[in-house]
Amino acid sequence: MERSTSRTPLTSLKKDLRKRGKEYCSKERWMERFPISIWAPKYNFSKGLRDLIAGFTVGLTVIPQGLAYANIAKLPLEYGLYSAFMGGFVYMFLGMSKDITVGPTAIMSLLVAGYGEPLGDAADDLNDPTYAILLAFFCGIVQLFMGIFHLGFVTNYISHVVVSGFTSASAITIGFGQVKNILGIKFSAHGFLEEFIETFKHIKDTRWQDVVLGIVSIIFLILLRFLKNWSQGKIENLGKKPPVAKIVHWKLLWILGTARNAVCVILTGALAYGLMDDRNDIIFTITGNVTEGLPPFSAPNFKAPNILKVLESGLIIVPLIGFLENIAIARGFARQNDYRVESNQELIALGTCNVAGSFVSAYPVTGSFSRSAINSQSDVASPASGIVTGFLVLLAIAFLTPAFYYIPKASLAAVIIYAVIFMIDYKIVPELWHVRKIDLIPLGATFFFSLWLGVEYGTLIGIGVDLVLLMLPYAKPKTVVKRKNHTVLVELERGLRYPAVDKIESLLDEECIMRDDPSSVLFDFTYISAIDYSMLETLKLSAKAFQKKGQTFGVANCRRKISDLLIKANIEGMDIYDTMEDALSKMGPSTIEVNGDEVIEAHIHCEDDHL
Amino acid sequence: MERSTSRTPLTSLKKDLRKRGKEYCSKERWMERFPISIWAPKYNFSKGLRDLIAGFTVGLTVIPQGLAYANIAKLPLEYGLYSAFMGGFVYMFLGMSKDITVGPTAIMSLLVAGYGEPLGDAADDLNDPTYAILLAFFCGIVQLFMGIFHLGFVTNYISHVVVSGFTSASAITIGFGQVKNILGIKFSAHGFLEEFIETFKHIKDTRWQDVVLGIVSIIFLILLRFLKNWSQGKIENLGKKPPVAKIVHWKLLWILGTARNAVCVILTGALAYGLMDDRNDIIFTITGNVTEGLPPFSAPNFKAPNILKVLESGLIIVPLIGFLENIAIARGFARQNDYRVESNQELIALGTCNVAGSFVSAYPVTGSFSRSAINSQSDVASPASGIVTGFLVLLAIAFLTPAFYYIPKASLAAVIIYAVIFMIDYKIVPELWHVRKIDLIPLGATFFFSLWLGVEYGTLIGIGVDLVLLMLPYAKPKTVVKRKNHTVLVELERGLRYPAVDKIESLLDEECIMRDDPSSVLFDFTYISAIDYSMLETLKLSAKAFQKKGQTFGVANCRRKISDLLIKANIEGMDIYDTMEDALSKMGPSTIEVNGDEVIEAHIHCEDDHL
Repeated sequence: MERSTSRTPLTSLKKDLRKRGKEYCSKERWMERFPISIWAPKYNFSKGLRDLIAGFTVGLTVIPQGLAYANIAKLPLEYGLYSAFMGGFVYMFLGMSKDITVGPTAIMSLLVAGYGEPLGDAADDLNDPTYAILLAFFCGIVQLFMGIFHLGFVTNYISHVVVSGFTSASAITIGFGQVKNILGIKFSAHGFLEEFIETFKHIKDTRWQDVVLGIVSIIFLILLRFLKNWSQGKIENLGKKPPVAKIVHWKLLWILGTARNAVCVILTGALAYGLMDDRNDIIFTITGNVTEGLPPFSAPNFKAPNILKVLESGLIIVPLIGFLENIAIARGFARQNDYRVESNQELIALGTCNVAGSFVSAYPVTGSFSRSAINSQSDVASPASGIVTGFLVLLAIAFLTPAFYYIPKASLAAVIIYAVIFMIDYKIVPELWHVRKIDLIPLGATFFFSLWLGVEYGTLIGIGVDLVLLMLPYAKPKTVVKRKNHTVLVELERGLRYPAVDKIESLLDEECIMRDDPSSVLFDFTYISAIDYSMLETLKLSAKAFQKKGQTFGVANCRRKISDLLIKANIEGMDIYDTMEDALSKMGPSTIEVNGDEVIEAHIHCEDDHL
Repeated sequence: MERSTSRTPLTSLKKDLRKRGKEYCSKERWMERFPISIWAPKYNFSKGLRDLIAGFTVGLTVIPQGLAYANIAKLPLEYGLYSAFMGGFVYMFLGMSKDITVGPTAIMSLLVAGYGEPLGDAADDLNDPTYAILLAFFCGIVQLFMGIFHLGFVTNYISHVVVSGFTSASAITIGFGQVKNILGIKFSAHGFLEEFIETFKHIKDTRWQDVVLGIVSIIFLILLRFLKNWSQGKIENLGKKPPVAKIVHWKLLWILGTARNAVCVILTGALAYGLMDDRNDIIFTITGNVTEGLPPFSAPNFKAPNILKVLESGLIIVPLIGFLENIAIARGFARQNDYRVESNQELIALGTCNVAGSFVSAYPVTGSFSRSAINSQSDVASPASGIVTGFLVLLAIAFLTPAFYYIPKASLAAVIIYAVIFMIDYKIVPELWHVRKIDLIPLGATFFFSLWLGVEYGTLIGIGVDLVLLMLPYAKPKTVVKRKNHTVLVELERGLRYPAVDKIESLLDEECIMRDDPSSVLFDFTYISAIDYSMLETLKLSAKAFQKKGQTFGVANCRRKISDLLIKANIEGMDIYDTMEDALSKMGPSTIEVNGDEVIEAHIHCEDDHL
């Protein structure tokens, strides 16, 4: 039917659409939507073994981390584990990165803590998990939406410096938030500032037993980290065909060092149990009762009161930050290990992880940098390792919860502090000072406002500052102003967008409208490729003022798109001319030579893009 | 000493600085800082009479408005009056606009309500005035800071559409917030959503007496507004030399119509007093006890707990919105009445008004549109009218407070609703649809998020959406990619700023690093005028990836500023060449003709600035 070979724009467009439609429905396209369909056919035993070991090692890390991060999220400990298994199961089908392990992270936990409602006794400093689970559900929905409609690009507006400032501030907030657990004191506080003040207020209640345990735990973690790095160096230098005994020896030491969090928690828990006295009193401040058994499989509680009011900006911030964390890690490992990730597919994968997670009482999750690094170093072969990790976590939930009772709070705090301390990016400050000082402004703004008002607002403010700096050239467009008798010629560069409203208004007021000898004005729109509504309003008001003074207001050299827009906006008192010559001959009462010598004033308002 | 005529850049700079220093300290400059020094010498009796009448008329409006707006701000009624006198006194010395009257406004009151702590009994729905006064102080400090350091330009980033969306949402929030007072029901709620839900929950408690009074009040206000417009038309058409009796007749009717709020409040108050029964029970829900007498002159209470936590983002939002409201009004009247206002001077004036106000228990103030219009229509001659208004308010505080007891809440609510209903800017929607549909996105985002999360967050989100749209061309810079053997030539337009990181990364990954036959890449930086830290980091990571693959990564045609930056950043694995020819001859193993026919692939990624 449509075999016509005439290439009218319309049929060409139709063909293009049909081609695209086919592309979207093609088998390749659907396989891309389920990356498992690409790697599963090539799966084999040796890959399975690699995934098994990697998944196991990651599992040994995620169990203590989950417990600790639940603490940051101000949730009962078991919720950290509830959040740690579903991500791996789902990501295996939808994720493009073999290295990423999805689960609770320090930063997501901090954000979750910011959007909660206190649960019962305030002194416990725990939030109601209902809202954290709802947040996971809505966060997933937003991420799915962004993925399906290809909105991943909005994270492009969050620059490295803002991420750096945000991460450092988060690390400090999280780390300082655990100092009270090391000191064995109890209070409820929100945000760094309050935490800081309250800690010093309660410092007299410090329990020396907890302090000693906390410090010992940190030293222990430092030593095991050295062991891990040492054994890793040894493994890399084993040479070709090393004896199996040697491999096993160093690999075991490496796993011991890598699973240092688990080792630390188990040992200190055993110590607490062992030091229990006759009256069942325990020398350290311990975790206490943990709900036993697997979480129920049920929808989040949509009937909770004030859902929108409690979650408010979290519905935007949490999905964005979660995605940002995930894609940064995925990109990094993709480059290192030579594969490709696609941001919208990652959004879909992450969104599904969160929605599915919310049905098993998980709070919002994302890719974890530390665990993904362990996964990668364990030579993982595919996202299937997530299943192994997930099962290990499920086993822990099913059988280990009674043992969690004895975990000392100080040792969990040590695990957290030693994890986040490496997130503080202090090196960026001298680097920016050396290379580009102006970027210190968004960095500083993000950092300080994050500590002051909380990371969620700090990040928003940092993004704002960044955009303002980025837009300075738009706010101060270059203009060349020439005066010819009673007409002012203004040549403009760049688009006329709203940040320039003020400059254009002042220019018209000062040069034309409010002078003792008001002048007509003629804009040269040669370089203008865009005008927005705010600017149209300004032009409208100015045209009215010109009319009132009996002066004329014209534009010339418009592009087609712009003149169409001006005609549509129907600006009373503004004339549109084809060329400057045309305009000048029709505007002024006296004829003026365009190329003559009558320019009596010429200055450039802004020299260059100064940023 | 420095008579040298050699014009080295340094001495020229010194001279320039000295000249500027002189300028800043000149008499003219100081007179500009105190605009009163310019108009006061020319002041005379007839101007004084005009100011007296205008100030009196404005005073009749600000007294009922102040009482009503305190209600919006969730403060005891007298605080509306406390906020209504200091502004006029201070603005007289520092303000540049004769028309502006500074005092409480509906929008500032709404913002103040958002940053408070409940005071005592929650059912009263009142906030602790301490924080509102502190907010005024800090708001003033921020405005002074912005004025002194010429930071007024940041409001340029708030476009007309965001202001429109914000204003309409504020009007709806404020108006709906008063429905409960018309219905005579009582509850505590924050924000439009909660107010909406709670109103319907409590609707069964409606008191018919209040409803009747509210409706009657609104009808009364509508009629008096017609009277005002009618008499204004008559006055304008009086012709030359009209009889004095006629002038007085119409002027009195005009003042009656203009002071309609005062008339309505007085009449309904008298009605409530008259309908009091034997047991002193009053048929309407009334205001109740109001603190008598003038406010103390004392510093704000800086010892209040959690100041920063309560005021949080208000410290940024309130000064910005306040200034925005003020400068928009000042600009409008300046154009209409042919004078000039300068934004930094207005910031200083407004900041001083707020700081001074905070010492007499005022909450944040700004220029009021409705009262400035009345001022202007009353033919005001100078900012001295503010003194008249101020004294009238002080008299009201000193002697009328006992009478405020009887003011029915429903009639105050009617005053508010009838004031804000005109702020809803519904006309902008069809206009944008006609002229520029894309601007509906920031409008809608601001409007809906303002209703949902509160105007303070809605505005921030709207600004963000606006900036994202504005920046799309930065995020998708035009690139021309050509392939020559194993080298990819990339020509870039615009600055390389952080929103483009994603595009550049994907381009390098797809075209060069992750191909089966990885290619070297050469960037043509001819059009690049700026690079920021995020982009440098991306280039660094990419250079590393190229190095790993044994491929080279180069840039050519850098401007001096850019090559300096790249050298400082010390990017390992990236070579900087002078020209493309130079680069191609040194990079590839095979010599390649630049102008030859070896271009095998050329496509433009992005056609045009699509916005």
